[in-house]
Amino acid sequence: MWDNDRGIMMSTNNWGRWGEHDQRGALNLITPEAVKAAALRRVTGKVYSLAIQLSKATVPAVHDRPAPERYTLSSVADIGRVPPFFEIGEGVGANEDVLVMPSHIGTHMDALSHVTSASTLYNGFPADSFTPRGGAAKCGIEHTGSFAGPAKLLDVQGHLEATTGSGLATGQVIDSALLEACRAKQDTTIEVGDILLVRTGWLEHRNSHLPPEQAWMQAGLGFDSVEFISDHGISVVGSDNSAIEPIPFDRNQFLGVHIELLHQRGITLIEHLWLADLAADGCYDVLLAVGGLLVTGATGSPVNPIAIG
Amino acid sequence: MWDNDRGIMMSTNNWGRWGEHDQRGALNLITPEAVKAAALRRVTGKVYSLAIQLSKATVPAVHDRPAPERYTLSSVADIGRVPPFFEIGEGVGANEDVLVMPSHIGTHMDALSHVTSASTLYNGFPADSFTPRGGAAKCGIEHTGSFAGPAKLLDVQGHLEATTGSGLATGQVIDSALLEACRAKQDTTIEVGDILLVRTGWLEHRNSHLPPEQAWMQAGLGFDSVEFISDHGISVVGSDNSAIEPIPFDRNQFLGVHIELLHQRGITLIEHLWLADLAADGCYDVLLAVGGLLVTGATGSPVNPIAIG
Amino acid sequence: MWDNDRGIMMSTNNWGRWGEHDQRGALNLITPEAVKAAALRRVTGKVYSLAIQLSKATVPAVHDRPAPERYTLSSVADIGRVPPFFEIGEGVGANEDVLVMPSHIGTHMDALSHVTSASTLYNGFPADSFTPRGGAAKCGIEHTGSFAGPAKLLDVQGHLEATTGSGLATGQVIDSALLEACRAKQDTTIEVGDILLVRTGWLEHRNSHLPPEQAWMQAGLGFDSVEFISDHGISVVGSDNSAIEPIPFDRNQFLGVHIELLHQRGITLIEHLWLADLAADGCYDVLLAVGGLLVTGATGSPVNPIAIG
Amino acid sequence: MWDNDRGIMMSTNNWGRWGEHDQRGALNLITPEAVKAAALRRVTGKVYSLAIQLSKATVPAVHDRPAPERYTLSSVADIGRVPPFFEIGEGVGANEDVLVMPSHIGTHMDALSHVTSASTLYNGFPADSFTPRGGAAKCGIEHTGSFAGPAKLLDVQGHLEATTGSGLATGQVIDSALLEACRAKQDTTIEVGDILLVRTGWLEHRNSHLPPEQAWMQAGLGFDSVEFISDHGISVVGSDNSAIEPIPFDRNQFLGVHIELLHQRGITLIEHLWLADLAADGCYDVLLAVGGLLVTGATGSPVNPIAIG
Repeated sequence: MWDNDRGIMMSTNNWGRWGEHDQRGALNLITPEAVKAAALRRVTGKVYSLAIQLSKATVPAVHDRPAPERYTLSSVADIGRVPPFFEIGEGVGANEDVLVMPSHIGTHMDALSHVTSASTLYNGFPADSFTPRGGAAKCGIEHTGSFAGPAKLLDVQGHLEATTGSGLATGQVIDSALLEACRAKQDTTIEVGDILLVRTGWLEHRNSHLPPEQAWMQAGLGFDSVEFISDHGISVVGSDNSAIEPIPFDRNQFLGVHIELLHQRGITLIEHLWLADLAADGCYDVLLAVGGLLVTGATGSPVNPIAIG
Repeated sequence: MWDNDRGIMMSTNNWGRWGEHDQRGALNLITPEAVKAAALRRVTGKVYSLAIQLSKATVPAVHDRPAPERYTLSSVADIGRVPPFFEIGEGVGANEDVLVMPSHIGTHMDALSHVTSASTLYNGFPADSFTPRGGAAKCGIEHTGSFAGPAKLLDVQGHLEATTGSGLATGQVIDSALLEACRAKQDTTIEVGDILLVRTGWLEHRNSHLPPEQAWMQAGLGFDSVEFISDHGISVVGSDNSAIEPIPFDRNQFLGVHIELLHQRGITLIEHLWLADLAADGCYDVLLAVGGLLVTGATGSPVNPIAIG
Repeated sequence: MWDNDRGIMMSTNNWGRWGEHDQRGALNLITPEAVKAAALRRVTGKVYSLAIQLSKATVPAVHDRPAPERYTLSSVADIGRVPPFFEIGEGVGANEDVLVMPSHIGTHMDALSHVTSASTLYNGFPADSFTPRGGAAKCGIEHTGSFAGPAKLLDVQGHLEATTGSGLATGQVIDSALLEACRAKQDTTIEVGDILLVRTGWLEHRNSHLPPEQAWMQAGLGFDSVEFISDHGISVVGSDNSAIEPIPFDRNQFLGVHIELLHQRGITLIEHLWLADLAADGCYDVLLAVGGLLVTGATGSPVNPIAIG
Repeated sequence: MWDNDRGIMMSTNNWGRWGEHDQRGALNLITPEAVKAAALRRVTGKVYSLAIQLSKATVPAVHDRPAPERYTLSSVADIGRVPPFFEIGEGVGANEDVLVMPSHIGTHMDALSHVTSASTLYNGFPADSFTPRGGAAKCGIEHTGSFAGPAKLLDVQGHLEATTGSGLATGQVIDSALLEACRAKQDTTIEVGDILLVRTGWLEHRNSHLPPEQAWMQAGLGFDSVEFISDHGISVVGSDNSAIEPIPFDRNQFLGVHIELLHQRGITLIEHLWLADLAADGCYDVLLAVGGLLVTGATGSPVNPIAIG
């Protein structure tokens, strides 16, 4: 049930579950035993990158976030600037870049400090623990940016294409029933601590067929998917759309599902995942390793999750 | 033998070995079978991050590279800028950052376009295929930024501390004999395609005991370590120092070992790795996943390699 | 006459005119006496800014140049980061920004290192004196970024509207005859060392009436305007369009008029000037002060030229 | 008298003086007549830049502000990226930069939104009108970034050197009496609306003779100089130190004089001015033009003020 006054859903949350000082949230659900078990059931050893390239041309544009830019820091033409006390072979030099990009661009993960509600972050930390220069004093990406674990792909788009002949509708709200139907069809087992990957097909196709003012509309996880996620003890949710949740937002609540998952339950979110290759291989059970940039106090990071089949 | 005219070692290189169009180099040596085998021999399932935090205070300063900066892109205070057609709960908003950082700062990997010699990149691609705006048209990070494989840690510093009572000397040149002695002592098996991690202890201790003008001096892999690396068919070399190679450079050759490994053999390099935790656990055989930022045309990327014990 | 081999016009240039080491070009033509005389003939004392605001929303987009961005460096919310040895009054703090922008965005000036031809910069300096990290070792903005002098506005657009009933055609090439006709109609005296401002009306109206693929088409100074500029001993040319010259380029020569003026004659160029207010006041003779950012080695700078009527 | 509760001095301020919507403050005191009169009394026509170069090597380091950086956006090597529908002469191309810098670095001006006290900006605008993404919705630099007017230099350092044999002491607090003594000695007339430039000599000499932990100590305008500034109807105050006011702050009040001048009286401040050349010429009465970057919503801007003698 939605509590409009507090801006949250009236349901069990995870605040305090791992102690009042916890800044890692549902990542606590991933155990070394589960990681080991996931490693031991590898089938192909095939390695998948779940990231798209970072450039203005390749990332989906998101409201008010500038495009990622790579500038040149130095090249072999700068070799004269090197201290002259080394011998420098013919044509020897180095090319280096400087990167300027939003933390939440392309394939990226949200730190638990990313969204606020009712003046708090996850676990009840005060929202004003985030400041412009200091960044996130609580729940910065340095706390959640490093993890690995078993991940299960629910190819909702593939499931619907196979069963109905057409995929998700633009802006369709995905609920627990649809997730369960997909899971059952795939015969995928989900265990506590698993990372859940949901394929909508959006990143592959985007909405180039729609007029520009509708191109940002996307299917995604609605409020009624929270039960599935919560009951299965999911640690991380990733999807191939822009916000995990649908756009327009379910029940018209701005960042509503972010609040349910990230803010209330401490579930790390990963967006703009490239799930097409896993889906094409029918690879629904992977060992996933995610290494976000450990930028002190950042509220998210571009990531290149590596999956092993 | 060193050829001063061409600025390279006169030894077998890997150019053409994987075809004239290859931009992935020795990463080709990692097979799915080896990845699977590495997964299947997991012992603890413990997950290690091999990265340090990215901030001015935490990364080693490197000549002419600015410090990494996190700026605030937006916070909950900007909520009024959101299009008003959604309902916004009390205190609901989002914190976002913009990141400005060199590609080669903190824990980072080198793309095969990072160093040039004799007007070429790895595999003979012309050095001028890199341009300021375009970046690397050949051997950009998008070609090597995603991999996983078996990694073997040679704790050279720990080995020397145990056998001699003192560790590596400042600026000491590590050679094949020392690597082999360490490997034998650890009883570590190295196979073709393995990722080699070399711990010098530098990142943990830095050189705070030295006067500032010597603080950048570091032990590292010298020319005489290339044989060990080459003979074992190593795919990737990572270390906890600033340049893989020693500083001052071995034989006074600027970037000499970079040229031998990265430019001649297409061996991806990872620097400023945090290897203290693996060493403390005596964990010398890990499954390593590396997801660099796939910035189109970049010559490197900060990374957060994830190791599983 | 155009010399296709050398990529320059076969006409008198200014190389060597002020010495082989000169990096200031035609700015040498402005004398203190002329500045004083311009000051002494002030009529109104009215102050005009000739710049437009710098933001994504306000600057014309130019091929491959990112939009200017202002990020927040710190705000009063960061007050806790200030060293605690001062007393801090209630609510006392500071807001600060970090600016990320191309040097050639919005209203901006070109340094003499901006364009190259035949492997040279202005005055014959080698083109490779510019390097990615070092920037312009010759003719950087620090040499030309500071000047003041008499400026004469030729309101070509206003002249044509008054005499023909319609203004410049999209992409029209302005020649010496048109400049002279406008000058004569305005009864404006031009003296050696004067700054020439040419109003095309483009910045005020842009080409919103044209389809996007033509919106960048602009009237500007063609090759046949060089005689007028050269004969009058103009020190600086500014206009309200994107390139001083027309787009598409006159005679289809990429940057052809840049080469004639900036590269051959050392004439500083200022683009995207806001000339509407001067034109509306019929103010054709101003004292103009231009203070570019003296970024060491930069090839241009956004500027806010201040004119006094 | 200082009011510790409100964090301001209990003295006449300028709030409301130019209307409740005013965002320009004491710049309103500069009249076209005064600008014209200043122009008409030009003596030499000599042009002075009052800015220092912008680079890590040339700007004073200020707590927590990163150094200014120039990166290369593109060079002639990128010519292949230009649309091929133009003819491109031999070696024709363009060098361009991207600038990354704090708004308050090197020679710079403060917008009236720069400092807050008691939850307000100048003229009573709410402090929270500044937000991270939006910047300053009130009193952004676009309101005060463009001005010109008569400026009077008080060479306090030169005055003290001449009269006492030594200049200002490190951290010395300059008061109204010292300003008046200097003014009288120079025989300089100050009129309402004048820009006041105060030379302490700091920028020329910095504190290289002091140990690093004291190098930031600087003489500057204290609380007891406010009377002089206020009584003379000064529009803008500029100095060659880092904060106009002394460091350590007078009476130990963080930004205390900023609040008196900028926040209470709407007086624009300019810092790190290069005043050595004016002082060397004994040029105390100039026509000053200041064109800040009109970055929408910025709280300051690097500037290159142009003075005419």
